[in-house]
Order: sequence, then C-alpha cells, then structure tokens
Amino acid sequence: MEHGGDLLSYEGCYDGELIDYSSNINPLGPPKGLEKIIIDSFKNLEAYPDIKYRRLKDSVANYLNCNENNVIVGNGAVELIDNFIILANRVIVCTPSFLEYEKRSIIHGKEVIRVPYNSDFTIDILDIGNKIEKDDLLILGNPNNPTGLRIDKIELIMIYNMVKKAEAYLLLDEAFFEFCSMDYDSIELFRQTNYENLGIIRAATKFFALPGIRLGYGCTSRELADKINNIELPWSVNSFAEAAGNFIFNDKQYIDDSKRYIENERKNMYQELSKLSNIIVFPTETNYILIKLLKWNEEYVFNFFLHRGIVIRKCSSFVDLPEGYIRVAIKDRENNIKLIRIFKELESI
Amino acid sequence: MEHGGDLLSYEGCYDGELIDYSSNINPLGPPKGLEKIIIDSFKNLEAYPDIKYRRLKDSVANYLNCNENNVIVGNGAVELIDNFIILANRVIVCTPSFLEYEKRSIIHGKEVIRVPYNSDFTIDILDIGNKIEKDDLLILGNPNNPTGLRIDKIELIMIYNMVKKAEAYLLLDEAFFEFCSMDYDSIELFRQTNYENLGIIRAATKFFALPGIRLGYGCTSRELADKINNIELPWSVNSFAEAAGNFIFNDKQYIDDSKRYIENERKNMYQELSKLSNIIVFPTETNYILIKLLKWNEEYVFNFFLHRGIVIRKCSSFVDLPEGYIRVAIKDRENNIKLIRIFKELESI
Repeated sequence: MEHGGDLLSYEGCYDGELIDYSSNINPLGPPKGLEKIIIDSFKNLEAYPDIKYRRLKDSVANYLNCNENNVIVGNGAVELIDNFIILANRVIVCTPSFLEYEKRSIIHGKEVIRVPYNSDFTIDILDIGNKIEKDDLLILGNPNNPTGLRIDKIELIMIYNMVKKAEAYLLLDEAFFEFCSMDYDSIELFRQTNYENLGIIRAATKFFALPGIRLGYGCTSRELADKINNIELPWSVNSFAEAAGNFIFNDKQYIDDSKRYIENERKNMYQELSKLSNIIVFPTETNYILIKLLKWNEEYVFNFFLHRGIVIRKCSSFVDLPEGYIRVAIKDRENNIKLIRIFKELESI
Repeated sequence: MEHGGDLLSYEGCYDGELIDYSSNINPLGPPKGLEKIIIDSFKNLEAYPDIKYRRLKDSVANYLNCNENNVIVGNGAVELIDNFIILANRVIVCTPSFLEYEKRSIIHGKEVIRVPYNSDFTIDILDIGNKIEKDDLLILGNPNNPTGLRIDKIELIMIYNMVKKAEAYLLLDEAFFEFCSMDYDSIELFRQTNYENLGIIRAATKFFALPGIRLGYGCTSRELADKINNIELPWSVNSFAEAAGNFIFNDKQYIDDSKRYIENERKNMYQELSKLSNIIVFPTETNYILIKLLKWNEEYVFNFFLHRGIVIRKCSSFVDLPEGYIRVAIKDRENNIKLIRIFKELESI
C-alpha cells in the first residue's frame, strides 16, 4: 500500500460503502458553485488549455499573494515536485515522509540522501548541514506526511539560510497548508528573499477536496519558475482544473469554514484518541493523525477497521517508520465519532 | 511558436473570433452524451482517480482490441512518450517531427540522434539501421506531424525487425490514427509479437476533440507496461478523463461519421489547394496538410490569414524544415471553404 485513497482494492471486503480514512481530504467537499463552473467549462474542451496558463497563474498569484511570475502550476503537487527533482543534482529527504520524494528521485536517476527525523519528528538540522552540497534539493513536508508537524518558524529560517549558503535548493511541500493553525505563512515569510533557491508547493487536492481534478501550484523564484515552465509537460493542467483554479480561491467563506471545522475536529479527535490505552497519539497540526500501536500489529488493526467499513492507512511502507504505525484522517463529526467508537471496541477486546 | 492551438497569444489581432487551423482537432466536436458523463462524474471528484486505472484500461483494451495488461494511460499522449524516453538510453528522432520528442529527451538528459526524412518524407531506414544501438528508442510519428504521412506497412515491419534485432525500442506516435484511411492497424499488425520492444501511443485529444481533458493511451508489451506503470506520476489521469475514456470509445456511430467526414474534406481540400499556384501541397493521410510556400514567407502568410480571422501553423520551428512551410488543419466544410478563399485572395495579390 504505497498511497492512501485506493478503496477499489478493498471492494467486496465490507458489505456497504467504505469510508476513506486513508487519504486526507476536506470533509466539507469542494466549494459550492464549482459544479456550475465545470459544466460551463465543458464547451472549452475542444480547445487546448492555455499552454502558458496566464489566467490561472494570475488567480493563484492573487490567492498566494505573490507575483504571477513566481507562480508555477502542475498536474497535482506531485508533478511540480517531480520537476524540481529533475532540476536537482542529489535529493535530500527526511524520513519518514511522502514516498514520492524518493521514488521520483530514483526514477530520474538522482542520488537520494536520507536524513531521519529526530524521535519527536523534528528536523535534524545538523545532520542536513553535514550532508548538503551545491545543487542538492532538500525536500521537506510542511506539515510533513505522515507525522503531521509543521516546521518551527525559526528553524525553517535557519534551514533556508543554510541551504542558500550551500547553493542548494529547498522545496517545501505544503499540500496540507490550509488545514494548519497558522503561526506563519512561508510565502509571506520568504517574500524578501524573492524565493531564491526556494520552492513552496501547494495543491487543490486536499483542502479544496479535489483529488480527481489534479491541480497543484506553487511559488518560487522567477528564475526557477522559468526553468520549471521550460521542463514541464505541455498542457499538463487539464481544462477543468484550469477553470476550477480560477474559481475556488475566491470562496473566502468556504476557506474560513473549512479551517474552523478541521481545527475543531482535530481538537476533539486528539482528545478522544488520547484517552485510549495501547496506542500513542502523536500531536498534529493538520487533518491527519499518526498513531503508534502498542499492542496490535498494523495488519490486524487495518482489518479490524476494514470489517467495520473504514479504510485506514498502514504506515510501515513509509521509509524509517517501523511496523506498528497507522495514520487516520480527520473527517466529519459523524464519521470521526464512528472511528473513535471502533478504536474503543478494539481496546475492549 | 512551438505548438499550435495557442490562440490566446493572438487575441486582439483580429476583430472577431479566431478560427484555429494551427491545431488539428476533429471538427465534429466531442461525442454527444459526454457532457452528461462529465456532469455525473463531478460527484467523484472528492475521491482520487483509481491509481491503477483498472476500469479505464479495460475500456481502452476493448477499443484497441488488445489485452488490458498491455494498456498504458497518461496525461495526454505526450506523458506516455515522456515515460518511454525516461526508460531509453539514447533517442532517435526522424526530422521534421513533433518537437516534444527531442525536447523531452534533452530534459531527461538523453542523447538525441537525428535522422532526417527523405525529401519525399519517407523514412531513411538505412540511416536508422546504421545508427541504432541497444536500448535506443526510435520514435516515429505514424502519421508523422507535420508531414501527414503514415509509414508504409512493409517498411514498418522492416523497421520493427531491425529495431528488435538491435535490442532497441520502437515507439509509434499514432495520436492521429483514427483520421487516417486504414490500410493497416499497428495493434493488429504486431499482435503476434506481443508488442515486445514496441509502444503504440494514441490519444483522445485529436480524434475525440478533447485536447482539454488530457487522455493519452497506448499498447505495449506487458514488461514495458509494468515499467511505465512504475515510473508514471501517480493519479496522472484526472477523474474526468477517466470517465470520458469509459464512454467515448463506445460511440461507433460518432467514430464512423468522423472518419467519413474527414476523408471527404481531405479530398476536397487537397484538390482545391492543389489548383493554386505559388504553393506546393504535400499529400496527406490525416487531418492536416503541409504546404510549401514558393512566393511568400511564413510570417507574411501567417499574418495574412490572421488578419482574416484564421490562425495557421508556421513550420520553421520544426527541426530540419526550412523557412517557408505552413501547416493547416482540415476542419468543417464552411471553414475549409473560407480557408481556401483566403488562399485564393493571397494568390491574386
């Protein structure tokens, strides 16, 4: 199981509709009004999307509060990450983290340097400092997947300065950015640097609940944006994603409601799960929770939930995470209560 | 101008809606009924597309009449071509041809070997034979873009045998396949070989008039299909493309009507254009025509058409095609008549 969200592989294991706690999508669903936008954009299907994505980049720039020349767009965040990897010499990944960082690097023939997170899932800055060289790409999840933690603001500035001094590149994968309680916004934080040697990637996938539409975007230096535009596959963002990107960022009410909803559910779920014995619940700043199992193995717990209609994420496929970890999404109240009830049932056996 | 279809760059150059003769899309538009499919699939946007594309591959296999284990799918044909390039050692391209063959190769750090087409745009098999080595990828447009010719059946078999003997790979880019008058179908032709060392790429883009949806697909050996599946970006085909792929191939009436329509228009346009002086019209088997200008330069002719509301394709950006060539699409009767009228006007000046 390399990725969450693959419910089709478990069809027939449960008599009813499976609930997906293995991928981390906004439970409120996409912004209202998007359906009309999609229907309206059907008539544009006969034309290629704008190969330069001029209007879409303008929409993203408005949302991120940066210049449109700093904006890059792609077929999901993962394509943009892939493009940065193509430009790099070696790739430094902190582990455990999103599997594609390492997988894409290997596909493109890049040497991968692993730096394990500290035991509390903070970053081992000293170890990175010892290893980083010119033209290396350091990729950091912010918040990191599956650990759920954002990078401390001061530490992030330290890391960026270190990377820049080494003439290397820092890529922040912020696909879950909007779910986090905000103490800083990287795009704001690094504005003065003109994003030199820096890429900040976000996505419509998780927060806007659009994994099917495939829209990733990001902010980087003009120099890197030009390079990414040059190596990106032509027309990689489809017309529907293009139309959605010109619409979703304007729905401030939806954005506020979603943030508040998740923050509330995160507090509730963390509190409820923390009461249970036989598991360790790790602190999270986003919409998923990493859990260490103290009594059962992953497979047992996975099947226990599956037979009750819920698909969770086994985590031993993450590099440097031993057997015995699972990750669960934070979803809507009703399902979260169901999830917690099953945890209690598991505990009671 | 690297690609056709970029009308946005010419906005304001003409007082009215521009007609796109620079990209080669089925003038009948997408199959009827697709709009409902798209609307229905909106509700699936909150789930990831099937990461293994099981149902989609089944639909493609039915359409291509091959086994679903031989099927690959991607974010347009160009992503699949890109994946074959990643797997290759060196890349052999015949010139002039679709610019992305060479561009993607350079992006992935692959050495590119150019073999110019003969003066009648047939393939210089001997020259390829002299140059091809183990693990090379030979990419051939079939029909080739911008020349419009398919590979002769006997020559294609010779080329495949030569490639296979060299332990190299042959990639046929058949993005315009359905527009051609059929004397053979490569998928049928090579069935006995189990598509070893062979990839045949097609797309919904051109024939099904869906450049915005981004759906490419192909047929290759099980071994190569496994390799492509392994290196492909996860979820690279969006949910709408996935839904469309499960629908469009079933509309036999649309497919027949489109073929007949284009064949008819092709004959008419070729006949009409051939009557004109000061241009050489090259024979074509597909839905676009390459034209050599004997009197004017590309820029002059491009602007002449632009000021009359039609965007044509200047061809000097194609490698090994000198200044003085243009390419025009074959579209619906009304617009084709308009195009020919403007050619006559040009001639009369």
